[in-house]
Amino acid sequence: MTSPMLADLTWMEARDAAERGACAILPVGAFEQHGPHLPLLTDAIFATEAARAIAETLDAVVAPTLSYGCRSKALTGGGPHFPGGIGLEPAVFMQLVENVVRELLRQGFERILVLSCHWENRHFVYEGAYQARQPDTEGSARVMVIESCFGNTIRQETLDAIFGDEWPGLAREHAAIIETSVLLHLRPELVHMDRVVDDEQARFPWWDVIPPPPEFSTRSGVMWKATQASEETGRRLWADIVAAMTAAVDEELFGAAQSTGGGSGD
Amino acid sequence: MTSPMLADLTWMEARDAAERGACAILPVGAFEQHGPHLPLLTDAIFATEAARAIAETLDAVVAPTLSYGCRSKALTGGGPHFPGGIGLEPAVFMQLVENVVRELLRQGFERILVLSCHWENRHFVYEGAYQARQPDTEGSARVMVIESCFGNTIRQETLDAIFGDEWPGLAREHAAIIETSVLLHLRPELVHMDRVVDDEQARFPWWDVIPPPPEFSTRSGVMWKATQASEETGRRLWADIVAAMTAAVDEELFGAAQSTGGGSGD
Amino acid sequence: MTSPMLADLTWMEARDAAERGACAILPVGAFEQHGPHLPLLTDAIFATEAARAIAETLDAVVAPTLSYGCRSKALTGGGPHFPGGIGLEPAVFMQLVENVVRELLRQGFERILVLSCHWENRHFVYEGAYQARQPDTEGSARVMVIESCFGNTIRQETLDAIFGDEWPGLAREHAAIIETSVLLHLRPELVHMDRVVDDEQARFPWWDVIPPPPEFSTRSGVMWKATQASEETGRRLWADIVAAMTAAVDEELFGAAQSTGGGSGD
Amino acid sequence: MTSPMLADLTWMEARDAAERGACAILPVGAFEQHGPHLPLLTDAIFATEAARAIAETLDAVVAPTLSYGCRSKALTGGGPHFPGGIGLEPAVFMQLVENVVRELLRQGFERILVLSCHWENRHFVYEGAYQARQPDTEGSARVMVIESCFGNTIRQETLDAIFGDEWPGLAREHAAIIETSVLLHLRPELVHMDRVVDDEQARFPWWDVIPPPPEFSTRSGVMWKATQASEETGRRLWADIVAAMTAAVDEELFGAAQSTGGGSGD
Amino acid sequence: MTSPMLADLTWMEARDAAERGACAILPVGAFEQHGPHLPLLTDAIFATEAARAIAETLDAVVAPTLSYGCRSKALTGGGPHFPGGIGLEPAVFMQLVENVVRELLRQGFERILVLSCHWENRHFVYEGAYQARQPDTEGSARVMVIESCFGNTIRQETLDAIFGDEWPGLAREHAAIIETSVLLHLRPELVHMDRVVDDEQARFPWWDVIPPPPEFSTRSGVMWKATQASEETGRRLWADIVAAMTAAVDEELFGAAQSTGGGSGD
Amino acid sequence: MTSPMLADLTWMEARDAAERGACAILPVGAFEQHGPHLPLLTDAIFATEAARAIAETLDAVVAPTLSYGCRSKALTGGGPHFPGGIGLEPAVFMQLVENVVRELLRQGFERILVLSCHWENRHFVYEGAYQARQPDTEGSARVMVIESCFGNTIRQETLDAIFGDEWPGLAREHAAIIETSVLLHLRPELVHMDRVVDDEQARFPWWDVIPPPPEFSTRSGVMWKATQASEETGRRLWADIVAAMTAAVDEELFGAAQSTGGGSGD
Repeated sequence: MTSPMLADLTWMEARDAAERGACAILPVGAFEQHGPHLPLLTDAIFATEAARAIAETLDAVVAPTLSYGCRSKALTGGGPHFPGGIGLEPAVFMQLVENVVRELLRQGFERILVLSCHWENRHFVYEGAYQARQPDTEGSARVMVIESCFGNTIRQETLDAIFGDEWPGLAREHAAIIETSVLLHLRPELVHMDRVVDDEQARFPWWDVIPPPPEFSTRSGVMWKATQASEETGRRLWADIVAAMTAAVDEELFGAAQSTGGGSGD
Repeated sequence: MTSPMLADLTWMEARDAAERGACAILPVGAFEQHGPHLPLLTDAIFATEAARAIAETLDAVVAPTLSYGCRSKALTGGGPHFPGGIGLEPAVFMQLVENVVRELLRQGFERILVLSCHWENRHFVYEGAYQARQPDTEGSARVMVIESCFGNTIRQETLDAIFGDEWPGLAREHAAIIETSVLLHLRPELVHMDRVVDDEQARFPWWDVIPPPPEFSTRSGVMWKATQASEETGRRLWADIVAAMTAAVDEELFGAAQSTGGGSGD
Repeated sequence: MTSPMLADLTWMEARDAAERGACAILPVGAFEQHGPHLPLLTDAIFATEAARAIAETLDAVVAPTLSYGCRSKALTGGGPHFPGGIGLEPAVFMQLVENVVRELLRQGFERILVLSCHWENRHFVYEGAYQARQPDTEGSARVMVIESCFGNTIRQETLDAIFGDEWPGLAREHAAIIETSVLLHLRPELVHMDRVVDDEQARFPWWDVIPPPPEFSTRSGVMWKATQASEETGRRLWADIVAAMTAAVDEELFGAAQSTGGGSGD
Repeated sequence: MTSPMLADLTWMEARDAAERGACAILPVGAFEQHGPHLPLLTDAIFATEAARAIAETLDAVVAPTLSYGCRSKALTGGGPHFPGGIGLEPAVFMQLVENVVRELLRQGFERILVLSCHWENRHFVYEGAYQARQPDTEGSARVMVIESCFGNTIRQETLDAIFGDEWPGLAREHAAIIETSVLLHLRPELVHMDRVVDDEQARFPWWDVIPPPPEFSTRSGVMWKATQASEETGRRLWADIVAAMTAAVDEELFGAAQSTGGGSGD
Repeated sequence: MTSPMLADLTWMEARDAAERGACAILPVGAFEQHGPHLPLLTDAIFATEAARAIAETLDAVVAPTLSYGCRSKALTGGGPHFPGGIGLEPAVFMQLVENVVRELLRQGFERILVLSCHWENRHFVYEGAYQARQPDTEGSARVMVIESCFGNTIRQETLDAIFGDEWPGLAREHAAIIETSVLLHLRPELVHMDRVVDDEQARFPWWDVIPPPPEFSTRSGVMWKATQASEETGRRLWADIVAAMTAAVDEELFGAAQSTGGGSGD
Repeated sequence: MTSPMLADLTWMEARDAAERGACAILPVGAFEQHGPHLPLLTDAIFATEAARAIAETLDAVVAPTLSYGCRSKALTGGGPHFPGGIGLEPAVFMQLVENVVRELLRQGFERILVLSCHWENRHFVYEGAYQARQPDTEGSARVMVIESCFGNTIRQETLDAIFGDEWPGLAREHAAIIETSVLLHLRPELVHMDRVVDDEQARFPWWDVIPPPPEFSTRSGVMWKATQASEETGRRLWADIVAAMTAAVDEELFGAAQSTGGGSGD
């Protein structure tokens, strides 16, 4: 059986995948600080693993992940001046996404999923895909865009079980319970639970300021409680995420039974 | 007394405003369909009026509004192919914001607020401001960015009173109760209540698809219930919005008492 | 009767305007110093009001004005470093014009007028329109470009009556008799006749120098005699301007009787 | 004695020129139709020869000419779709000028003249120079920009003697008396007087239209009377042009006696 | 002991690496056809593994590989229209390299190696690095650029032993003996020796043609003899490559004994 | 008989050349130091003269030369900070090439040769041509690209006769025997044999470093032995070059007898 990773395929196998109608998934991550206990590549790992998991159920191939994404904002990731991060300028990032999606379209893929797991990529990743697949051009190819790994994919009952009534909102849950738990599940060897801390910004307003005041981020890079993370929680979260994403792609690109709708918002 | 609108001032008056430490506000809107009953300029009107209202309390001048914003997405505004809209490419929009903010900085404004009232401008408007005021450059000027008129500004009790438990989420409330009510309050002569409809997308998933399926938008352009709008509701909403924004600018740029934090998320 | 301002229309009304063959006018101005007595928005006001006046006679709708134009040169407006001005980089300005005109074309407008009232926008505004409507693309839509409000629109006998033999040339008449008079006619409440001065550059050569020597501009920002301005003169000038522009659009876009030619040059 | 052409110099000679304070001249032309009798390079020849002539009097070196300029407009050169022309997109042209001027500045030239002889380069050539020598950067280097060969350089009495009262304006004088005569003087071997014609556009309005109607240009490419051209007229015109340009550069860059002003306008 | 892969590190570990003077290596590959037997990611694998090998000897950390490079040319890789390839536009690729290198510099890395293993990335990868580290900016950081994995790194005696007098030149050795052998050594599970073929272009001129004639590439994508590849040959080649690269980085960035020169040319 | 230089032609003659199937040649050079004895324009002279020589045998017209190319690297030309050079940013250079080639295509030329004689233009000049003539667009026009004057054009026996076994490789032969000899043949009046020197870099590694160490270039700008140059050698080299180029263009664009292949590599 061939690998789902496009990188491992020969050109003939890639051509065959496009011809038989497989979905090409482009995982998009970021490279930025995730506290003293998680690796810099965390977001890209989530995107890659989610894509790989979808490809276990549906006919899909996974293109090489974009490991670099847009630089983070202070409130939601520490900001571009936190050490360790390598962020792209959004104008460059958009063109990068556009180039790769355009090439996938050129190769004949009719089902494409762009799957981004980094808050600050949002809107930019969509726009990159939009530039590649402008609606007024011909063809039947469709590009589906998921702009968040955790938004809308985790069931409310799972959140309730984990957070009780302490849910801080997704924007704030950086390098905290969800991300730490899921990475404990996916790559335990990369998580330093001995260094984990709980932390919290002194201020978390609904606006941004440039340059960001120091109190908009934390010294550790953790934005909420990370100590409560566990592999068990990660496994539970990941099951929800994979199930939701797989169902979404199945519904939208493979014509499964019509969805009954569902909430949006990010 | 001089006008708060920078457009009405002479260069000497503008220079004086910068020198005395006034805040320069750049309202950013969009030009897109808002159903059969609201004008195309709706978002820009909100941004302009919010800026003007802030300038009634704080020492601020309002620069000419950017009337054109990023093209809308199908789910949250009808999409770029809905008739009537004039959307900018995000790459151009970012540079436009960057140019104007950079010029305000060059003129010596140390307090700048970029106030955008269009969902699809988000992240792009921030990035434009970021490019103009890169954190590693010198100077004490600060640029505050508000990326939504209605998010975080309306009190929960107001939402409860208006929507009960029928709150569809902000992304969905396009050309519906909130926008119609507020415009009835601000510019009743531009609202055609005789044409108002309730409408709803057949599907409203948490992902995007390009090209968007028809069921992602409505034929009317209204995305939710608009018939329940009223001037009274608009007045109430607007009072919340203006109070929240004014307090935010006061806190952040004029050093009012420290905030006790507050929720984020969009 | 509906407003001629596209901003006030709903998407259905805008669509109807395009379908019935109305002309869409894009006014383009600038935001720069106009002496101690005129507002910063002066050029954009001229463009907007000229568009509105054309729409009183011909079937036209007026899109939101581009309030920001190209930065001025020292000799003809004080230069980019005069306080108060907000100028765009020409490369951004061209793309902005291109984006808006392209969107008007996409909506089906077959008659488009780009009407710019700022010396330093010239060539850039044309190029923006050209990029949007490249001659070798299909379609019958035509884009007409007027690059000056006052050039070629004021009759020689009007100029003679106002200036006698003291006509300094249009490039030099910045914030002086013509502009002051016309604004006194259009927006008297924005003109501070109590602050008006006559002024003149120490040098006005036929070349440019970067950085500009101080003697290329004046301290007041007025480049010529402004004290002789009057509302009466403004009314007379405006009548010429509106008549000439309306006739031009009628001739070119609505197929009125063939012109007998006329002088050009700027 | 060394050549004034920078192209002929070694790097040591170029370095010496910069160090001793020589003026570096960048001639900018265009490559476009000039009727059935003049070569495509006409504008670039004018720019190059004017630069060389200035260098006969003043201490100047002449950089390689930019032979390609902005595409012409229909009214003033036949337009981009006239056969034979090779026009650059203005956005590229501006960057090209910027790159070359920036390099001259980097080499230490403190006196730079950008000398353009093509109507449609105007504003773009200035902007390119402006980008290279932004006024708020350090240094004492000055960049002088001349945007026209024939405007303001030919004495009124010369024009009167040649045209009497038939002066059509400079914009219209394309491939006509002035250009033909001057080229007869400078490069007689490139002028085909046996093919020369008089011609005239059916319409010459003060606005532009895209795509241009056929009556905006002529079939020959000549826009006015060319048959009256003569080498004698060319010699007379060229003497005026060289004298005016040399005096201008002397005044502005070499600090000759202060100018008494003079008219502008193009 | 910590991983040499920057992706596995936390922000604190990355910061420490920069502070202690470690070299940051950016591997740059490509994603393109490599015959019926090698995976699409081949070039990126070479770059990544070479970087990892260098980090075994020297103090270095390896940033996430750029898996997408410039599209190939017909003669040297099959060209952009060969199925399977995902190539970036060079203008985007250059900015991508520039962004990542600039971020590494911002984090304080003083020793940076950009290591590209794809023929068509050459010059573009250098220029990206150059834009990030412009020589006239301050600082002591140095960016070393290697633009080829196999050029200059394999000893002549190794080439002689493998090819005898049948050496086709590096440009032609695509998906052939060298690449197949090295991948057999590094990732045998990704090589399909059962599908391997020898192939050769019908023409291999020293110029390019656009669009490329079919005879400029082969149907298999292999450009030379691949059947003679073996793991043993790969091991031998890889030993040369790693030794040469490690010595080069040691010499240039860590100040080892001065080199005695050596040949260049690509 | 008409000139082969497009610059000398009228638009009608240029149109006729395109219609009869002539080849349009775009010579591309550079403007950079070539030691104490050769002029800055050296590379552009080679490109222009080679094009002119081809046009003596084949039906070809020569467009104006691009005199400015990409800035040189330290190892192969002295680098961008050597005095005298005027180098373009590669991103601008690519667009410039693209614009000119696109215009030649628009005029109907079906045979186009882009002939570049500057090492650091390579890949960039190809990419510019590629952007202009994208393979998936329609039409039968072909663009041939030669990226080096001396590579592959000089016969081995000629090299042997001149260099014996002292051949340093083409990259190193800057301002040395080949270039000096050929220019002595083509433009003896521009060569200062009284200033010629032999020189050699202290280090010439197979990688690049930014900023380049001083020992990567020489003080004279000559990179090898130049004193042995002679007009006789130049004549012999030029005969090879012109013969090889003419045969190549004949074979590829005019369908001469099929080539038997030949080596590549640069």
